[in-house]
Amino acid sequence: MPLTPEQQAEIAETRAALTPTRRTVAPGIEAHLYEAKPVLDHGFVRVIDYMGDDAAICQAARVSYGRGTKSVQNDEGLIRYLMRHWHSTPFEMCEIKLHVKLPVFVARQWIRHRTANVNEYSARYSILDREFYIPAPEHINAQSQVNNQGRGVVLEGEEAARVLEILKADSTRAYDSYEAMISQEGQMGLARELARMNLPANIYTQWYWKVDLHNLFHFLRLRADLHAQYEIRVYAEEIGKIVADWVPFAWRAFEDYRLGAVSMSAQMMACMRRMLKGEAVTQETSGLSAREWREFQEMVGE
Amino acid sequence: MPLTPEQQAEIAETRAALTPTRRTVAPGIEAHLYEAKPVLDHGFVRVIDYMGDDAAICQAARVSYGRGTKSVQNDEGLIRYLMRHWHSTPFEMCEIKLHVKLPVFVARQWIRHRTANVNEYSARYSILDREFYIPAPEHINAQSQVNNQGRGVVLEGEEAARVLEILKADSTRAYDSYEAMISQEGQMGLARELARMNLPANIYTQWYWKVDLHNLFHFLRLRADLHAQYEIRVYAEEIGKIVADWVPFAWRAFEDYRLGAVSMSAQMMACMRRMLKGEAVTQETSGLSAREWREFQEMVGE
Amino acid sequence: MPLTPEQQAEIAETRAALTPTRRTVAPGIEAHLYEAKPVLDHGFVRVIDYMGDDAAICQAARVSYGRGTKSVQNDEGLIRYLMRHWHSTPFEMCEIKLHVKLPVFVARQWIRHRTANVNEYSARYSILDREFYIPAPEHINAQSQVNNQGRGVVLEGEEAARVLEILKADSTRAYDSYEAMISQEGQMGLARELARMNLPANIYTQWYWKVDLHNLFHFLRLRADLHAQYEIRVYAEEIGKIVADWVPFAWRAFEDYRLGAVSMSAQMMACMRRMLKGEAVTQETSGLSAREWREFQEMVGE
Amino acid sequence: MPLTPEQQAEIAETRAALTPTRRTVAPGIEAHLYEAKPVLDHGFVRVIDYMGDDAAICQAARVSYGRGTKSVQNDEGLIRYLMRHWHSTPFEMCEIKLHVKLPVFVARQWIRHRTANVNEYSARYSILDREFYIPAPEHINAQSQVNNQGRGVVLEGEEAARVLEILKADSTRAYDSYEAMISQEGQMGLARELARMNLPANIYTQWYWKVDLHNLFHFLRLRADLHAQYEIRVYAEEIGKIVADWVPFAWRAFEDYRLGAVSMSAQMMACMRRMLKGEAVTQETSGLSAREWREFQEMVGE
Repeated sequence: MPLTPEQQAEIAETRAALTPTRRTVAPGIEAHLYEAKPVLDHGFVRVIDYMGDDAAICQAARVSYGRGTKSVQNDEGLIRYLMRHWHSTPFEMCEIKLHVKLPVFVARQWIRHRTANVNEYSARYSILDREFYIPAPEHINAQSQVNNQGRGVVLEGEEAARVLEILKADSTRAYDSYEAMISQEGQMGLARELARMNLPANIYTQWYWKVDLHNLFHFLRLRADLHAQYEIRVYAEEIGKIVADWVPFAWRAFEDYRLGAVSMSAQMMACMRRMLKGEAVTQETSGLSAREWREFQEMVGE
Repeated sequence: MPLTPEQQAEIAETRAALTPTRRTVAPGIEAHLYEAKPVLDHGFVRVIDYMGDDAAICQAARVSYGRGTKSVQNDEGLIRYLMRHWHSTPFEMCEIKLHVKLPVFVARQWIRHRTANVNEYSARYSILDREFYIPAPEHINAQSQVNNQGRGVVLEGEEAARVLEILKADSTRAYDSYEAMISQEGQMGLARELARMNLPANIYTQWYWKVDLHNLFHFLRLRADLHAQYEIRVYAEEIGKIVADWVPFAWRAFEDYRLGAVSMSAQMMACMRRMLKGEAVTQETSGLSAREWREFQEMVGE
Repeated sequence: MPLTPEQQAEIAETRAALTPTRRTVAPGIEAHLYEAKPVLDHGFVRVIDYMGDDAAICQAARVSYGRGTKSVQNDEGLIRYLMRHWHSTPFEMCEIKLHVKLPVFVARQWIRHRTANVNEYSARYSILDREFYIPAPEHINAQSQVNNQGRGVVLEGEEAARVLEILKADSTRAYDSYEAMISQEGQMGLARELARMNLPANIYTQWYWKVDLHNLFHFLRLRADLHAQYEIRVYAEEIGKIVADWVPFAWRAFEDYRLGAVSMSAQMMACMRRMLKGEAVTQETSGLSAREWREFQEMVGE
Repeated sequence: MPLTPEQQAEIAETRAALTPTRRTVAPGIEAHLYEAKPVLDHGFVRVIDYMGDDAAICQAARVSYGRGTKSVQNDEGLIRYLMRHWHSTPFEMCEIKLHVKLPVFVARQWIRHRTANVNEYSARYSILDREFYIPAPEHINAQSQVNNQGRGVVLEGEEAARVLEILKADSTRAYDSYEAMISQEGQMGLARELARMNLPANIYTQWYWKVDLHNLFHFLRLRADLHAQYEIRVYAEEIGKIVADWVPFAWRAFEDYRLGAVSMSAQMMACMRRMLKGEAVTQETSGLSAREWREFQEMVGE
């Protein structure tokens, strides 16, 4: 468990305090507030704050004077309509703030999503903890043979053991060196902003990350996808569970029209229409490249 | 008063409902929630929702596990330090959502602030109300003689009366035409997306506007400034009062280091240092252009 | 034609001047530079500057040292791959700057695309011209009966004539009043920032608009769509023609994978797979709402 | 020198090719195009492309039909006015694209500037080179005693030697392990996206970075500042030299009104006015905190 007893106590205390507010309260996410959801070996995701709920999406879409809810049924229909027709601004009216602990190489992918607010733990100012991501054996894979930027089969036996050993030993050594360089016992002590350069990308960092629901959905669509690297996907999946409890209508619409949806090119649609009329279309007669034909087969197949 | 009795009742009902939450509650802004603060003749600003408070700024800056407050004194010191040294990200961790009713020509300036979320009332979908901004007599000014894009002295007598008369008559006529064109009595009725083009820029529109505190401060610095057009400045001032109650430490830091601060160029600083040593500096010996010298005089003068 | 002889001469002169550069030159767009392409009755689109071409997209995707081109065939394949798999950053490496003259109500929709740079002609500083958009008779439509925010059949006969007459008369009157208020003959003259509020939304404004190719594609996908209002769609279409000449590979990929593509929800894909197996699916057995079923029929139909 | 002979040849060839264009050409930056300016021990900055020049800033501010230049003198005055009064949009009308090679820990600071376009070399897809930043002896400093996040005096003698030895040895070992893990000789070979996690933050990465002039100035103001970490400051300084040649008027205005300017709080201005009248102000009578008083002394001092 990544938290110290003091941190756990601080979280428990914060969770226990209830204050009355005039604002919209979303019961489904209140239950998650402040709790550290473990991700990977030392990471976590914690909801720190949120703004809005399903009704707030409709309220903004309607520019309402009151809470904006007409009826629950109406609201779900409107949300599905907005999602289906790519109306993004009403979803921007919900906001969430997370506290995330994650390996640096995951943080480097994550930060590419620019429309968000971030405060990262400063390694110029503070000393990083001795916490490194070491993959579980079932997540140590070979380079993919078919996809140039993914991973293939799980490594086994001696090779897997060697990888684990290297990662652990190098992390330990790098951190020992880090400590030795910044130590002020018997020496001046190297500046932290310099010493950190010796630390590998599997060290953990942490940040506060605040984002609106539209941009969060965009993040989840790309990062909960099977082509995303496993180590960021598990964060996306954990956040997805929280969002499903927070804004259930919006989440279902997102699942149906984004996560589970398929984008067919003009050429693919033409093929499909021919197939629906009973024509037997082959790659040769499809007008699609070999690669696109393979992707098309996956879409229409089982 | 710009609200109907139904709208007032809806607002009163929403204000009356209190729900317990685990989130940070900022008492100073709770009092303002949902209330329509009148601005200009038919406009208003209403707080719909908010996230965070002064402590949340510190919590993010410290990447804390709990509420993040060390002590009230510490927090104010940290906030002032962050503001003074242009640390913007911790201020982005607070968010506010407003419902604003404003003339279209004000909305056109406002929307230039791009880092915000907006849902505007749709004149393609809905019919606009017959509400136009007609300036109060003390806000009808001549074109400025010294500043090419501002206004000068207040117009008086017959000229002022003529302006008011024109604005009222033309607004009335434009709206009558609008109604006549979209009417479906005895005719098809022109599409709303077309009919709206006949309406002048003093008609009121409304929107939901959501923005983080850093970008809101940027908006306020530019729009609460004396060089801003009066009609947007009054909105900025009204919002400023709300922010002062919401995040009092951040607001005071903003007043001291932004609103009331002065930016001196390298050359101006050089002049000032010479003057502090007792030298009598004139425009000729200052190295400043006539225009800059005038601005410098205003800065160091009474 | 919306340009004065002086403006035409200025444009011709600028077009005539050729300067050698070390930068990437895209021949297809050089031909368009500075030329005013007429849109609507007084509007236009002019390319002022551009950065990059198809090869620049690949160069950035490959983080190359040289021009980045491997082979033309390779480049097109890479661009199609990037588009198909939603890689947005390489497309952001191309940039275009346009000078656009457009009615204010179109500008108000356009400005909602926030990731772009804009300099608009200032009506606080300058006097607007007497130029108003008056729709051609074939573009005066009734409110749609099926779509709450669109337009339906073309208005005819007396009703259409009445609309045209109103728009022309009200524009003339509004501009006459504008001139009368700002005039400094025999009076002080109202400040421009105030007088402009009397002008209707069909008056023309103009701006410089700079955007990267990724965000431009997003703009075109939404605004060249049949659901977009006609008056902004014609601008999108005109820009589309320019883009097709500028980055022909990227444009074709955009046509195939975005403009002509179809996004099918999880439920729609399930229906389609059943239909491909020969099952006769009806709305009742589809699991789709009536509205979604109608949309699905349009996708798979002729 | 960080470039291979092939890369140098590719750059030389690209520099040699001149093509006529109708676009604005800025002679001062043409000379820099494509050339790798060395930064740190293995890094560089290269200009890949640019859009606009000083005249383009004025052209957009004036929404001009032609090149927009009235007279060189007018242009410089307008640019200084725009900079002094915080008009940001005309500066956004210039754009620059750089190819940068930089240590990962510098990249992590750099990427925090969100309003820019980035394509980074992919360590999921490609193998990183064996290139690590090892500071020159004069840039190995102790942690600062006065500033919690900076560096203090230069380390000397044995301690400095030990730091250098550690950084070199650990980098070598980390890269050896990286190679051993991804090697496909006699084993499957670990996926690159996993193996990279073993590499420390002083390894070099590279990216294409595209930004508009306004946001570049913001980057330079923060990163060319003395409080910025040395290793990013040297990049900012190198870029600054390029910008000074590209848009000399804008650069001088930036130097005078931003880089060399000082922002005085309301309280500081009050002190200064008292001092100008001959009053001897002390911290006690100033109303400033000890910290602010110290900063004020630095501003008005020599």
